Amino acid sequence: MTTNEPQPVTPLPFIDALLGYQRTAAIKAAIELGVFDAIGAHGADLEAVCAKTNTSAHGARILCDYLTVLGFLEKAGTIWRQTSVTATFIDSRSPSSMASVIRFLAGPELLDMFLADPAGYIRRGGTDGPGHTAPEDPIWVTFARSMTPFTIAAAKATATYVASWPKAPRRVLDIAAGAGMFGICVAQAIPEALVVGVDWRDVVALAAENATLAGVGARYRTIAGDAFSADLGTDYDLILLPNILHHFSHATCVTLLQRVRTGLAPNGRAVIVEFIPDEDRINPPVPASFAFIMVALTQHGDAFTASEYAAMARDAGLQAGPPVPLPPSQERLIELVV
Amino acid sequence: MTTNEPQPVTPLPFIDALLGYQRTAAIKAAIELGVFDAIGAHGADLEAVCAKTNTSAHGARILCDYLTVLGFLEKAGTIWRQTSVTATFIDSRSPSSMASVIRFLAGPELLDMFLADPAGYIRRGGTDGPGHTAPEDPIWVTFARSMTPFTIAAAKATATYVASWPKAPRRVLDIAAGAGMFGICVAQAIPEALVVGVDWRDVVALAAENATLAGVGARYRTIAGDAFSADLGTDYDLILLPNILHHFSHATCVTLLQRVRTGLAPNGRAVIVEFIPDEDRINPPVPASFAFIMVALTQHGDAFTASEYAAMARDAGLQAGPPVPLPPSQERLIELVV
Repeated sequence: MTTNEPQPVTPLPFIDALLGYQRTAAIKAAIELGVFDAIGAHGADLEAVCAKTNTSAHGARILCDYLTVLGFLEKAGTIWRQTSVTATFIDSRSPSSMASVIRFLAGPELLDMFLADPAGYIRRGGTDGPGHTAPEDPIWVTFARSMTPFTIAAAKATATYVASWPKAPRRVLDIAAGAGMFGICVAQAIPEALVVGVDWRDVVALAAENATLAGVGARYRTIAGDAFSADLGTDYDLILLPNILHHFSHATCVTLLQRVRTGLAPNGRAVIVEFIPDEDRINPPVPASFAFIMVALTQHGDAFTASEYAAMARDAGLQAGPPVPLPPSQERLIELVV
Repeated sequence: MTTNEPQPVTPLPFIDALLGYQRTAAIKAAIELGVFDAIGAHGADLEAVCAKTNTSAHGARILCDYLTVLGFLEKAGTIWRQTSVTATFIDSRSPSSMASVIRFLAGPELLDMFLADPAGYIRRGGTDGPGHTAPEDPIWVTFARSMTPFTIAAAKATATYVASWPKAPRRVLDIAAGAGMFGICVAQAIPEALVVGVDWRDVVALAAENATLAGVGARYRTIAGDAFSADLGTDYDLILLPNILHHFSHATCVTLLQRVRTGLAPNGRAVIVEFIPDEDRINPPVPASFAFIMVALTQHGDAFTASEYAAMARDAGLQAGPPVPLPPSQERLIELVV
């Protein structure tokens, strides 16, 4: 008996990928309607799901069965139950819930940018214009309000990392602070740290609110404006560059890194936190796939490799260390020194 | 050494499903730009891909790497190659190519219907109006022009099945003929068969063209119009109902099946061909998932189970047989007799 017979080639992987948007639709509908929460830890039948979500039986039954096929629910007889992924990461009452990320990752702006003309951004190599990098683009408020669960793991791991340096940084600048998580986590990990967050006006206002909620508001300042032109101050022990450089070309990144170099105190360090694929650009899958997000959403952005970040640093008069994993996040950190 | 340790729960399956639309975008861009064909059987480097597809190096590199992560290309050094799925089912020169299906399955109409407001169609249990079932809706021309590679396997298997009956059918009616494949395959399998295809005017015109191309034009007739109201004729040995009943409610299906019963010759038979999930509605995955497509695209449609088709048949004065597999298609066939 041999079990080495070649599997027949089927078109299912192709159809499955092509219909990927249907998964997006199902997940988005279920979260918006509260279907996962309605099913909860103890499971629910169709009548209970419909009653709790104000949904037609026809729609709820088809959605819950499809979510079962996708692995986000289990079905036993007439009862659907949450799977462990759903209970941990989708139920809105879970402390690790990522449900809010649908507002950005499956919001109308991103869906349109990806799907309206995918051949167009591949042909050009990016968006037809500055995309969402224009000043005060409102999408960054949506980003900051919804993506915290997606960025928090890397922020915590980064804070732990910099707090372990022989001399913990005190003056900290967080460039493109977003919801503020990186700077806030550093402030929580280092009780003497004073953190300055830079981002668009409406975004840093949210970061400041979050700092207060996190109990570090007294050590949190903000600079509203453009990281490329605002007065960022000087003499920082640590400058954080979390998920910002991927939006730009090599040359633009060098420009920003030159500003960073100017802002560092003697012996100060900057840290880049990014999805950094291996040099082959196809591993690991999540960082490697991130490049496709950048080509759809930015004019010149990319998922840069460690050697590309090292080249940018060099061109800006800085030296880059090797990439450091930040588990459980899929992002990695690169230290920059003068 | 134990290998039974529980795997940590990660949010990757959630993010992966939520970002499903990015796979759609990548596949669509690659087919529209001719990237898979450019890479061909022998592989290509970035320069060759860009030259053949008139694409930026930045865009082509990111797309090809992402397609490698997704499993549709392989990368060795600087050369991308087709995988077996790509060579067989996506390269436009393959006899089994399904590349054309992107025009319907990832066309702007379907993307909008699925993604504009997924919570809406789940709440209502279907589209807000008749969807694409209105007379002469142009999407059915797109369907007929692009979806043949998707329907041909079931059409061939159906033709083989009915040709094996003790008395092969001669007078054949194909309801909602689309590109005509089911009727045409029957005409090819049964040299004495005369086939009548029913569909909207522009659609049956295409079916007739296809019948001529397939060498059975002399035995192919058409009826342009609505299967619910047109004069369909009588005395048919075989009435084909391929992929039509899933658009409608039970009651509407019964109405159509009553017309079918009237149209059958003594001892005539009808055959339903559909994605028919098991009674649990979650297996097999492809037929079970089809219900989600119907709730997004139709007002009352569904992936009906075998027992639901049997109930429709009974209510229309017909008897339904058990579902018959049609490999390699994932569809199944149900025979109806008076």
